[in-house]
Amino acid sequence: MNYIITNGYLLLEDGDGFRAVKEDLYVMDGKIAAIGRAPETEETFTRIDARDRLVMPGLINMHTHVYMTGMRNYADDVPFGEWLFDRVMPVEDTLTVEAAYWCNLLGMIEMIRTGTTAFVDMHMFHEQSCLAAEKAGLRGYIGRGLVGGSLYEAGNRRFPEALEEMEKHRSDTLDFILSPHAIYSCSVDLMKEVVRESDARGLLRQTHLSEGMTEVENCLKEHGKTPVALLDDIGFLSSRTILAHCVQMQDDDIARLARSGATVVTNPASNAKLRNGFAPVLEMQAAGVNICLGTDGAASNNTLNLFREMGLFTMIHKGISRDSTAAPAAFTLKTCTSNAARALGRAGELGVIAEGAAADLIFLDLNAVSLFPNNNIVSSLCYSANGSEVTDTMVNGRFLMRDRTLLTIDEAEVFAHVRAFQQKFLQISL
Amino acid sequence: MNYIITNGYLLLEDGDGFRAVKEDLYVMDGKIAAIGRAPETEETFTRIDARDRLVMPGLINMHTHVYMTGMRNYADDVPFGEWLFDRVMPVEDTLTVEAAYWCNLLGMIEMIRTGTTAFVDMHMFHEQSCLAAEKAGLRGYIGRGLVGGSLYEAGNRRFPEALEEMEKHRSDTLDFILSPHAIYSCSVDLMKEVVRESDARGLLRQTHLSEGMTEVENCLKEHGKTPVALLDDIGFLSSRTILAHCVQMQDDDIARLARSGATVVTNPASNAKLRNGFAPVLEMQAAGVNICLGTDGAASNNTLNLFREMGLFTMIHKGISRDSTAAPAAFTLKTCTSNAARALGRAGELGVIAEGAAADLIFLDLNAVSLFPNNNIVSSLCYSANGSEVTDTMVNGRFLMRDRTLLTIDEAEVFAHVRAFQQKFLQISL
Repeated sequence: MNYIITNGYLLLEDGDGFRAVKEDLYVMDGKIAAIGRAPETEETFTRIDARDRLVMPGLINMHTHVYMTGMRNYADDVPFGEWLFDRVMPVEDTLTVEAAYWCNLLGMIEMIRTGTTAFVDMHMFHEQSCLAAEKAGLRGYIGRGLVGGSLYEAGNRRFPEALEEMEKHRSDTLDFILSPHAIYSCSVDLMKEVVRESDARGLLRQTHLSEGMTEVENCLKEHGKTPVALLDDIGFLSSRTILAHCVQMQDDDIARLARSGATVVTNPASNAKLRNGFAPVLEMQAAGVNICLGTDGAASNNTLNLFREMGLFTMIHKGISRDSTAAPAAFTLKTCTSNAARALGRAGELGVIAEGAAADLIFLDLNAVSLFPNNNIVSSLCYSANGSEVTDTMVNGRFLMRDRTLLTIDEAEVFAHVRAFQQKFLQISL
Repeated sequence: MNYIITNGYLLLEDGDGFRAVKEDLYVMDGKIAAIGRAPETEETFTRIDARDRLVMPGLINMHTHVYMTGMRNYADDVPFGEWLFDRVMPVEDTLTVEAAYWCNLLGMIEMIRTGTTAFVDMHMFHEQSCLAAEKAGLRGYIGRGLVGGSLYEAGNRRFPEALEEMEKHRSDTLDFILSPHAIYSCSVDLMKEVVRESDARGLLRQTHLSEGMTEVENCLKEHGKTPVALLDDIGFLSSRTILAHCVQMQDDDIARLARSGATVVTNPASNAKLRNGFAPVLEMQAAGVNICLGTDGAASNNTLNLFREMGLFTMIHKGISRDSTAAPAAFTLKTCTSNAARALGRAGELGVIAEGAAADLIFLDLNAVSLFPNNNIVSSLCYSANGSEVTDTMVNGRFLMRDRTLLTIDEAEVFAHVRAFQQKFLQISL
């Protein structure tokens, strides 16, 4: 369906900042066809009244594990080891594909409701993530978590399976990303194979990197260099590489990251909650590293709400630097919009309102008290919004939510299935 | 009106933690009359169905300047001096009492919607704060900001006025707090007068203390001691004293605070945004200081949403300490509930669900996706709630909001008046 979105304020990127303009927006064939004037076409358009709405690019969650939303608030206020080994892993060891599907949809409900239109995921039940994203209608860059000694090991069906699934599910809204889990769970040989395969196939690649100090200490002991240097030296870092965390930066790590063109995805809530601390984001940004924002999974955050994450991001970096001009609102917003598009190799196509870009849009109620009296729209998105202001969510020209009603997902059905997962796998009944 | 609130989960304090129990709650004459069993009375009760709701104590915002909500998102990403002298003060210099009233009501709408039932305020238009709180039905501890050389100075009508207003407005829900602004805007003599007057009249007292480094440096230069030592030495610190900020702790500051029994109200968003850094809350807590939470004003936060503030608080202190068990959920929740009641001299009467306590209650939708699947209720309040889960707000046994509909305030009327303030005083039109 084609739409003319009228009477709303459009949030346009403008140099280092943004500006809101009251113009009509034409959506055709999943893309933004025109702004301010009718496109030259015979097509008909359905009118959408966006009075008192801000129309802005949907947010992009650059690092998450969506299925973990079923484990939201399940393992908090415990040391990292207990979190991973005693709480999360026992659940994952028994998790069924069916449970993974419904837990994925729970996270997708939260993303749609809080204005996230695209996400980068890593998970072992890759196909369930694809199926759930197709059901929800969200834009996904989905990676099967790869571990071990080699992609091609006898018995390691992960990589062949992942490629097969990729071809089956690839679409306008679903793409694939090669996702070795981390340097401590993958061999150097596997990492080299990922470099070769992703370069040969033109695929993005992602990994967790330098998240905790133990990882860095062990890497220094084993390889005589930092995790960043290890991956840099084998050619893993590139402009098509997405690195989650990068909290523990040492030596010339930041210079190496900047030189490589790799993107760093910072996850402030998860890093704080799992006692990894704060990533040196401002130093990385100053060195020229592309910075994006992620929520990580809801078992360590405990939400996929990027409005909460933007607020946390800017407060933490203002506080650490003792500089009230640090991590300003416009920069913070770009970590979830145009910086993310750049990381995905889709600058100008995602994360912006511009002619020819994908129609991945969200509407916010400008009369929500948290935004009122609209003294500065961009500030309000980072400093006072909480995500509940989102009334409408569109991906690829299709509404997933209208006036806060979900259109692609039956919320009660998902809740019932997740409740069953909760009772069976977490042994919790409210 | 009397109520029986049924089918809901009541959040009860239980030692260091909380537990949720499915029990009936009886509200009579503004108080919690009974839990789990009918009270012995001939009174009739109106039944309120709280199915799928968490019923918990309303949150208490222990430091704010509510009228500043009109300046929400008005002065961000600028150095502190520009924020105060070039942006905020010129507006305050021309602010009318009428504008102050409507800006207060805007903030109160946000508090009611995000589950705050009581607040401690400091402002120059004291009477407008009282009138707005009476209109909204919120519980307020309201202080007129006092400055200068003496309370009784010729021409300084602040204190006599404040006492007069206090007597006029004091009620079941409105009380008064003596509020000298800060050691850099008040003389030591005035601070001594405040000690004498508040002790004589049994009033609480509050001030901003050790917020920024300039304040501390100037105090050391002028008085040869820190701001904390200065106030301690004149007897200002006591169990009836509420100190906002306390970010820049030096020497034996924390030991002095602990010995005095004073309460510290931390304001993490405001401290981060105005480049003051992070208060050493965990050290203060370990020393025995009563810790509460505040949002400060919306010109420096930029919201009065205590759910956002709780998340920020716990993340910051986990991150700084690199301890995932630090600032756990139950402690964080107490900073806005029972710790606040203790600071106000009303332990057991406010901030708890208990027989005899004031019926200051909020309901949260347990099917809100941000809380689902309710793996841990207390965790969810700190780590994944965003405030939009609040469906009902009651103060002193009176509903201020039912099913997200405001009952005491005409939102459109307030918005229209704040829009006029915005255009006239901030010169902003969307």
